[in-house]
Amino acid sequence: MDYSLETSVIGILAMKPVCLVTGVGPGTGRAIVERFSKQYVVAMLARKEDRLARFVSEIDNTHAYPCDVAVPQQLTTTLETVRSELGHPAVVIHNAVGGAFGEYLDIDRETLQKNFDVNVLAMLQLAQEVTPHMIEQGQGAFICTGNTSAFRGSANFSGFAPTKAAQRILAESMARAAGPKGVHVAYVAIDAVINLEWTRKRFKDKPDDFFCEPGDIAEHVWQVAHQAKSAWTFESVIRPFGEKW
Amino acid sequence: MDYSLETSVIGILAMKPVCLVTGVGPGTGRAIVERFSKQYVVAMLARKEDRLARFVSEIDNTHAYPCDVAVPQQLTTTLETVRSELGHPAVVIHNAVGGAFGEYLDIDRETLQKNFDVNVLAMLQLAQEVTPHMIEQGQGAFICTGNTSAFRGSANFSGFAPTKAAQRILAESMARAAGPKGVHVAYVAIDAVINLEWTRKRFKDKPDDFFCEPGDIAEHVWQVAHQAKSAWTFESVIRPFGEKW
Amino acid sequence: MDYSLETSVIGILAMKPVCLVTGVGPGTGRAIVERFSKQYVVAMLARKEDRLARFVSEIDNTHAYPCDVAVPQQLTTTLETVRSELGHPAVVIHNAVGGAFGEYLDIDRETLQKNFDVNVLAMLQLAQEVTPHMIEQGQGAFICTGNTSAFRGSANFSGFAPTKAAQRILAESMARAAGPKGVHVAYVAIDAVINLEWTRKRFKDKPDDFFCEPGDIAEHVWQVAHQAKSAWTFESVIRPFGEKW
Amino acid sequence: MDYSLETSVIGILAMKPVCLVTGVGPGTGRAIVERFSKQYVVAMLARKEDRLARFVSEIDNTHAYPCDVAVPQQLTTTLETVRSELGHPAVVIHNAVGGAFGEYLDIDRETLQKNFDVNVLAMLQLAQEVTPHMIEQGQGAFICTGNTSAFRGSANFSGFAPTKAAQRILAESMARAAGPKGVHVAYVAIDAVINLEWTRKRFKDKPDDFFCEPGDIAEHVWQVAHQAKSAWTFESVIRPFGEKW
Repeated sequence: MDYSLETSVIGILAMKPVCLVTGVGPGTGRAIVERFSKQYVVAMLARKEDRLARFVSEIDNTHAYPCDVAVPQQLTTTLETVRSELGHPAVVIHNAVGGAFGEYLDIDRETLQKNFDVNVLAMLQLAQEVTPHMIEQGQGAFICTGNTSAFRGSANFSGFAPTKAAQRILAESMARAAGPKGVHVAYVAIDAVINLEWTRKRFKDKPDDFFCEPGDIAEHVWQVAHQAKSAWTFESVIRPFGEKW
Repeated sequence: MDYSLETSVIGILAMKPVCLVTGVGPGTGRAIVERFSKQYVVAMLARKEDRLARFVSEIDNTHAYPCDVAVPQQLTTTLETVRSELGHPAVVIHNAVGGAFGEYLDIDRETLQKNFDVNVLAMLQLAQEVTPHMIEQGQGAFICTGNTSAFRGSANFSGFAPTKAAQRILAESMARAAGPKGVHVAYVAIDAVINLEWTRKRFKDKPDDFFCEPGDIAEHVWQVAHQAKSAWTFESVIRPFGEKW
Repeated sequence: MDYSLETSVIGILAMKPVCLVTGVGPGTGRAIVERFSKQYVVAMLARKEDRLARFVSEIDNTHAYPCDVAVPQQLTTTLETVRSELGHPAVVIHNAVGGAFGEYLDIDRETLQKNFDVNVLAMLQLAQEVTPHMIEQGQGAFICTGNTSAFRGSANFSGFAPTKAAQRILAESMARAAGPKGVHVAYVAIDAVINLEWTRKRFKDKPDDFFCEPGDIAEHVWQVAHQAKSAWTFESVIRPFGEKW
Repeated sequence: MDYSLETSVIGILAMKPVCLVTGVGPGTGRAIVERFSKQYVVAMLARKEDRLARFVSEIDNTHAYPCDVAVPQQLTTTLETVRSELGHPAVVIHNAVGGAFGEYLDIDRETLQKNFDVNVLAMLQLAQEVTPHMIEQGQGAFICTGNTSAFRGSANFSGFAPTKAAQRILAESMARAAGPKGVHVAYVAIDAVINLEWTRKRFKDKPDDFFCEPGDIAEHVWQVAHQAKSAWTFESVIRPFGEKW
């Protein structure tokens, strides 16, 4: 490999701002990556290495960082690599999510803990590692994606909703601390079924209108990440027009 | 004047969609008008005829319709005129607002009623007159601007907060009814002091950062009005980055 | 009639504190009256004179004051009569309610206004007339009964929910102003179908468990009205144990 | 000791229903214990053995079960002991709490985890162990005490508020699952400074009125635990009358 070429490519990449997205799967995560890749270099974090590799080959300006964000040392090492290869992220989107169904008598403690690890502790660690540089710059955006479990404890979501509620309140606490320092923390909740291969199978009889398009969610996240500093929103709840709520 | 030319100008105007804004004063109202005037023909409603006339001379694609929206017959007549001169509005923004300070023992019934007239009854009438055509088209946006009084009854806002809460809940009820028919109803609340001549005087010691810029609010309203149908938001709360909340 | 006896009876009654209840019908209103009549002299306000007369004959310590609370002069006159006959109320419960069904395109302005008159303006007037004496005493309770429309604008409640939301926020504003002066303002919302003759007919197939008992609501209102001053609640939402929410 | 006497005492105790309270310290916990001890046999759980022993000597009908509720095996063993010595609890109050101050950049992961252990995981375990018997009986109450951190992520509560929000949403999820089976789950939040030795020192200049009395909180918890089944409340927020909110 021609080292000087490699260097200059990295040099060019480095001129674009860096966006880091966790939980990059085939739905919202990938759509967010696609949207940001038009103007950012995007670091994609997820556990599935092969899928990330495929995304790199399909979407320009993206880089794969296989990583389990719930494992502190892995996340730390990965973030170091991202910083040294691409630079400090200007925008970070925590889209990784651990979920589970079940009433409180049917779930086990480990399930609740595991979801807390991914949804809350990983977000805290991520914020602690990436926002100090944003604060130094006096700008940056840290956005977390969520859903209605962040607001409501339905009977069948005992192993999940508490962790999303914790996540949202942690984001709110971060927003109040980081906002005056120029860093925008926001929470984007999707109150709908997202249009994915498996959801289309599960909700076979539903029309297109029933689903929230990943690309449209990504556009909303993009807008939130680029709001003018005098008019930020913290919370958004997204629904398709036909949704019953 | 060459009448045929006038006709053709109207003809051209008519090809742009129509946006109607109530409560067009020098702050948020004017900023919204400016933002939409870039791609819409804008009908401006407000009581002050001379101010509207000045705005018409300063901003292209705008038309003045002096009107007290709290007077049902005036509003009906004005809407008829707008429709015949410009066409059916595709976007309507209810920005007119009646306000008052005072604890419940210090306000009078008439104050609360007057604010209900402007904030709630006028919005209902407006929605009843403009959304049926939007529903026929299967698209359109009806956005109301508000503030934190819509969520919170502070001691000193007894004559105002109840009417904003009523307004927000009416908008929510409208959103649920009109959404599935393709019409987007949304509520944009500003939780901050807006940068205006009189607010700068009143909050003399505050830095620029303290204020919410009308232009940035307008940009947010624009984005909400143009969200993809699969990813609408109903409610936004806007704050400048340094706001304590 | 032996006049001196009558006087002495009034004298004895006057030693009990006075409770005033608006909207005394056969359900929650009557149950509240029954609960409070055990330790209070109760002034019952409602439009139906004959029904109130029957309640007087059936429940000790109650007095009928036929009155349309939405008519300011009637309410003022009635409150004067109550004060002169029974004394200043120590507890006031605004249970009168104006309701309506319908989406925003199907209701008319007058419906929304009428419900605002009863639910909001009458409550403001009532508070303005009865709480100054409570404030002088440094104690008293003003409780309003509501339902989930106070929190949520469902599609079919456009003519009602906005007025309940306004009522709740007015009560909140009153609570913040009157609380530090020793007067407890509270909002008790019932999120359920109440067990009444007509609701049993309408929900014929539902078991007893489905319904909220007026007597149990009344007991809750009683408890709220008598909470220790160091531990007040502003808001309660009541549901039967089997309610889906 | 006369064994037969001991047996008969236990026999008598056993006729009273059992109430179990976690986190029994000198404030709210002790007050709740005192209130319930009038009609229940009370099992007190807390880490400080000597303090519990003192409470046993000072308050009739109480029993000490030193235990760290955040340690699963300890909690399980303790609950087994309570059941074998006193019987199945009819009322359980989760008052144990892990707290911490600090913005998100100043707390560490372990702090957030530790508070999650006490506030959320211990509550889940407790509910899983005690409510199945309540469900069999078709009655029982499970109440959790909280504070405004359950609703709001203030900047300085990053290590605490997320866990209280998770706790409240878990309680809500439990309430929806257990309610229809006759078991009342409720959340009682105190939005005030509680009158304790250390809070009086810290807020030296504040009048008595500023503080929420543990005894009054306990009375409220008692009322919630004994609400009629047709009129339950899930959530209460308690404040002293002079509180600014």
